[in-house]
Amino acid sequence: MIKIAVDAMGGDFAPKEQVEGAVLAIEKIKDIEITLYGDEVEIRKYLTNEERITVVQSDGVISMGEKDPIRAIRNNRQSSMALALSSVKKGENNAVVSSGATQALIAGSHILIGRMKSMKRTAIAPLIPNVDGGQTIILDAGGNIEIKPEFMVQQAYFAKVYAQEVLKIKNPKIGLLNIGTEPGKGRQLDKDVSLLFEENKNISFVGNVEPKEIMSPPCDILISDGFTMNIAMKTIEGTAKGMGKMLKQELKRGIIGKIGMLLSAANLKRFKRRFASEDIGGAMIYGLKGVVVKAQGSSKKVGFYNGIRQAVLIVRNDVLNKVQKIIESDVL
Amino acid sequence: MIKIAVDAMGGDFAPKEQVEGAVLAIEKIKDIEITLYGDEVEIRKYLTNEERITVVQSDGVISMGEKDPIRAIRNNRQSSMALALSSVKKGENNAVVSSGATQALIAGSHILIGRMKSMKRTAIAPLIPNVDGGQTIILDAGGNIEIKPEFMVQQAYFAKVYAQEVLKIKNPKIGLLNIGTEPGKGRQLDKDVSLLFEENKNISFVGNVEPKEIMSPPCDILISDGFTMNIAMKTIEGTAKGMGKMLKQELKRGIIGKIGMLLSAANLKRFKRRFASEDIGGAMIYGLKGVVVKAQGSSKKVGFYNGIRQAVLIVRNDVLNKVQKIIESDVL
Repeated sequence: MIKIAVDAMGGDFAPKEQVEGAVLAIEKIKDIEITLYGDEVEIRKYLTNEERITVVQSDGVISMGEKDPIRAIRNNRQSSMALALSSVKKGENNAVVSSGATQALIAGSHILIGRMKSMKRTAIAPLIPNVDGGQTIILDAGGNIEIKPEFMVQQAYFAKVYAQEVLKIKNPKIGLLNIGTEPGKGRQLDKDVSLLFEENKNISFVGNVEPKEIMSPPCDILISDGFTMNIAMKTIEGTAKGMGKMLKQELKRGIIGKIGMLLSAANLKRFKRRFASEDIGGAMIYGLKGVVVKAQGSSKKVGFYNGIRQAVLIVRNDVLNKVQKIIESDVL
Repeated sequence: MIKIAVDAMGGDFAPKEQVEGAVLAIEKIKDIEITLYGDEVEIRKYLTNEERITVVQSDGVISMGEKDPIRAIRNNRQSSMALALSSVKKGENNAVVSSGATQALIAGSHILIGRMKSMKRTAIAPLIPNVDGGQTIILDAGGNIEIKPEFMVQQAYFAKVYAQEVLKIKNPKIGLLNIGTEPGKGRQLDKDVSLLFEENKNISFVGNVEPKEIMSPPCDILISDGFTMNIAMKTIEGTAKGMGKMLKQELKRGIIGKIGMLLSAANLKRFKRRFASEDIGGAMIYGLKGVVVKAQGSSKKVGFYNGIRQAVLIVRNDVLNKVQKIIESDVL
């Protein structure tokens, strides 16, 4: 049995979608047990099936817009997020899934679970959809504002193992997000990390990738420092939001247009769903002593279920030990 | 008369669209004269009206994918781009408009025109469309990979005067592109430049702006270093391209969907146009002793005409001298 700790109170639609996602996971995946951490009364409103599900009462909440995430975690050791994280540290569960505030989850993971041995920095790695229906691992999406090239190599190892074991990609290719494709482009960091990637036999490096290819990159993993990647991720979000609005503004023009829009309703909904990333699941926090998956804050039932499924795959395929081995062989 | 030098050979559809754009400008704006630099035989194929238009034969071409733009300019002093730039230096023309390779145009502007007195760095500042039909000045879109905070202040002055004089915005607001809205977010550069903007009376600073608001920002000017802004700009391009493809994939599903798509054809075309930015025009290179406007490489006739119109407004409203005054009062 794989044991999953679910932070039932984190997320825009918590605990409803988290609880329903957990029930869906129990129904779909037979060898798991789930512990839901949160407000027991609230949780039970949505708990239609208690098979292999336990509820643990929490106290205090880490709010989504937390300004000081480290203090929030320190002062709320009985919150659903903190209890779920601690349960992994204690060995009661194999993984945590949370839609709670990202920075609080990262800070909490550091404080309550800790970094993997020899791993210098953690990173958060979401997946984004491709034009061809696939997905790309994006890292670091915001953990490290400024970072050394060597630390990025460790993060690349992690992404590689994750791509192999969870996404089942045979020889994952990694690209560096940069302002031009030619070698030698970008900042000193980009030049330095390019050289490290090129000479590293553990990494299949395709070179620089421009953000204009971000939806159809020539690689499975796109890497940069946390600042740059966070800018890119949020620009995707902003562009998608802006384009969505503009599309709506234009499509509803004129009678014929309105009819066309009506007939296209189902297809437009499907298009929107591709960007909602519900089917893609969450972001793994790389570099911890335990498995932590951040499901999107806006997760609905299926999205949260996918986060749980992802956590199960990470545990089942022993990702952490496999990464640990590469990193230790590198240190020696 | 305002005299505009047009690089007729730069751009994906040169010289056709450049020549037709120039003819359109002559027809629409009565107090201008245009000199077209390029291959006279090619140019004359599209030159339907020679009123107030002169053609100057060039020799050699700066190609769009130029790997070494500085050498390209040095070795091609008789190219259409170099001749157009030199004509401004010599005082024969008031401004240059080119759809040629961006890096070559920036390098050529430095070599052949030179930096404005006391201006530490140039910058390139395109406009991007807003959700509400307006536009935002984006800088620096790629000139300076790494930059000092003080130099960003000078660029902000330039953007402010441009916004006032060309876009006719009364009190232009400036925002810093950053990974969070709270003060103190980002890298050391972001923290330092925030403090400089806050205490500067010449600048109306709204604070940090997240890229998820990039299509509807709470400001008229969005600023960052050239690396970050280039990443953001190219991410917009990549997301728009990817979303466009996904939209097409989804819209054509099923018979009803296909009919809907057909009925929406005109509206979809209008939507696409909003992103083609034809109506928005080009990017000004800030900080030079002359007016240089970079029209998009993919410019068609109307887009190139808008670049010319922009250059005329910059000259007519004496933008360079107004910026020079602010910068000099700041240096003293």
